[in-house]
Amino acid sequence: MKRIYSVLVENRAGVLSKVAGLFSRRNFNIDSLVVGETNSSDISCMTIVSSGDERTIEQIEKQLNKKLDVIKVKTFEDNESISRELAIMKVKYNRENRRDIMENCEIMKAQIIDMSKNLMMIQICDTPERVSVFIDMLKSVSIVEIARTGTVALTKCNEV
Amino acid sequence: MKRIYSVLVENRAGVLSKVAGLFSRRNFNIDSLVVGETNSSDISCMTIVSSGDERTIEQIEKQLNKKLDVIKVKTFEDNESISRELAIMKVKYNRENRRDIMENCEIMKAQIIDMSKNLMMIQICDTPERVSVFIDMLKSVSIVEIARTGTVALTKCNEV
Repeated sequence: MKRIYSVLVENRAGVLSKVAGLFSRRNFNIDSLVVGETNSSDISCMTIVSSGDERTIEQIEKQLNKKLDVIKVKTFEDNESISRELAIMKVKYNRENRRDIMENCEIMKAQIIDMSKNLMMIQICDTPERVSVFIDMLKSVSIVEIARTGTVALTKCNEV
Repeated sequence: MKRIYSVLVENRAGVLSKVAGLFSRRNFNIDSLVVGETNSSDISCMTIVSSGDERTIEQIEKQLNKKLDVIKVKTFEDNESISRELAIMKVKYNRENRRDIMENCEIMKAQIIDMSKNLMMIQICDTPERVSVFIDMLKSVSIVEIARTGTVALTKCNEV
């Protein structure tokens, strides 16, 4: 079962390694983890996507809540929330496939954000599923490098 | 000095807490950290933004390279790379400020991705600086919740 944890933490050195340690001690793999700023500079927001059964999810949530630096923990499922992910990637292009790449970008609303004689950098920001679809579409072209952010998520507007 | 570390690691439980521990043991605060997939499922890409003097940056890079799970470390400065960040946020709106919010979104190429009677969810994907500017613009409106991904970065196309 995939679960999204949204964790507000104090913005201090060491918090991340404590939280990551909590997952790794239980041998839980983290599918994606994001630490970003919030509108307060003292507080960071971590979004963690991990899989596990109901019992382990509860345990993790409890353990997280016990940590001194943790201010608030929310967990939610995919269907209660809106998820987004960002990926930037560099692809090799030539005269033959350039049109094709551009059309793929147009269809998936991706943008070309940098370019040289034989490389393009492309940005896509969408649901994690659609980001994966787009990357698969470009796999026939040679992707030189890729950086994905992992998932950020908030509960839907009508769930408040 | 702000420095971006791009670190390719084995996609295993525990790697994140090892890398985060390396920063926290030196009392280095991490401004932002992102762990995402690459085009190989065995390998994750971490993008870490941290500040420090030249000597500490070198040390961190050396220590990272020593870790068993670390495949490759690249560090780069802002001007050699293209950075992007994603933020999603929920804001309260009413009849008076709705037009204003919509125009802010239009100017900054942000999208409204969900809505209820009194809440909107907005997505922006841009340079970290412009994401911060947009959030500042919306601070006059009440931002209820916000999730930012932190920075992902790749070297510019002509830097290869």
